[in-house]
Amino acid sequence: MRITIIGSGNVATHLAAAFKNAGHRIVQVYSRDLQNAALLAYHVKADAIDGLKDINPETDLFVIAVKDDAIISIARSLAPFQKLTVHTSGAADLNTLISIIPNSGVLYPLQTLSKNKEVDFLTVPLCIEGANEQITLELEQLAQTISNNVYRINSAQRKALHLAAVFACNFPNYLYDVARQQLDKQNIDFELIRPLILETAQKVQDNLPVDAQTGPAVRNDQNTMEMHLQMLQDEPGLKMIYELLSQGIIKNAKVGH
Amino acid sequence: MRITIIGSGNVATHLAAAFKNAGHRIVQVYSRDLQNAALLAYHVKADAIDGLKDINPETDLFVIAVKDDAIISIARSLAPFQKLTVHTSGAADLNTLISIIPNSGVLYPLQTLSKNKEVDFLTVPLCIEGANEQITLELEQLAQTISNNVYRINSAQRKALHLAAVFACNFPNYLYDVARQQLDKQNIDFELIRPLILETAQKVQDNLPVDAQTGPAVRNDQNTMEMHLQMLQDEPGLKMIYELLSQGIIKNAKVGH
Repeated sequence: MRITIIGSGNVATHLAAAFKNAGHRIVQVYSRDLQNAALLAYHVKADAIDGLKDINPETDLFVIAVKDDAIISIARSLAPFQKLTVHTSGAADLNTLISIIPNSGVLYPLQTLSKNKEVDFLTVPLCIEGANEQITLELEQLAQTISNNVYRINSAQRKALHLAAVFACNFPNYLYDVARQQLDKQNIDFELIRPLILETAQKVQDNLPVDAQTGPAVRNDQNTMEMHLQMLQDEPGLKMIYELLSQGIIKNAKVGH
Repeated sequence: MRITIIGSGNVATHLAAAFKNAGHRIVQVYSRDLQNAALLAYHVKADAIDGLKDINPETDLFVIAVKDDAIISIARSLAPFQKLTVHTSGAADLNTLISIIPNSGVLYPLQTLSKNKEVDFLTVPLCIEGANEQITLELEQLAQTISNNVYRINSAQRKALHLAAVFACNFPNYLYDVARQQLDKQNIDFELIRPLILETAQKVQDNLPVDAQTGPAVRNDQNTMEMHLQMLQDEPGLKMIYELLSQGIIKNAKVGH
């Protein structure tokens, strides 16, 4: 397939590379910043452009991988080409895009993608949705060329997935950083806690989280929790986070088992 | 070494197995619940007891792996034997134990251990502390027979590690469960989000968390955060957790980069 990538961020970068590796041709990479477009375009042997007026109409698919609030205006510029167009957002619904480009869909990779970190794209869950069954089928076949985990997911489900991803990825990563801060205070290397972080994630690959829960809250060990809150007394934000998450764990333990 | 295990929980189970595998002899396993003691004792070819009066004095080391608030009373019962004694707690300091048993120390495994999940103990960071340099050395050598990651860690550092472990392990695991709840509402299998959880933990094995942060908060994407809070409107506890953690990420992004 001939594919045009709109955007040069994390998702654009990984999708473009995955398509290229699967044998598709990347026609152009667009970014408002020509340098960013050029960098990605170089990697996937495409042309770089920084103006939507320079779009090459000889393409089969537009992939809009930009910030959510820029999707609509980009879509308006692409509408005249009447090509199959997808956005890649977890949070944006499909109906708005359909109202501008009827021939459209969604290709949402459920993974934390950073430009400087390679990822085996074949393992990345790809959530697809099409304006109609024919488009859905087409996107499904396309997605299967770059991933072994393709799921049909409607807009409501995709929003739930996106919210769940914030809880399962963005927030844990922030808490890793809080841990690093606490270790720094006692001159302890972050390295010490890395095996714990990895094992915690590995445990829930075969188990449900509720069955893997450990720590003072699930034991309702009030003394230890008191001591931890004492240690956090100069950091009211962290103290509140500690209290709320501990309460959640205690509540889960009562309901769950 | 001849080792007596006091306790039959997660830490007791994994430590006993690791010692046994390394060629040490487990003399006895004590638990208030004889059935629990017997189960672990069977696995490590030891005798099971449920009364401290039945302790066999022919041992070299007592490992106290019980709830923090039971350590002191156990230590009082073991004091007359005048043997090397360690506790395995991240939160309990060493001085209290020394005041009861001068010949004592700490052996704290920094890992999330569940009875039903095997772990390669050689990779588990073991934090040791002794009442004096001779004991520290002895514990260091002992610890190195079961782990490749042995660290000398004082009581203040160990408390910081324990608090950090709550943020890096117990809280993320709870958030995985919150993600599962959100997916359940839309009949989405938890399986979809497992690769994301694993990749999030793998990313910080080579990077610092602050460099791996993704999601709406670090992009300061107010529209998406608003939408997520809307989706959580019937769950005030989760809404507050979402707000506090997002604020933390936004603050980090301002300070960090």
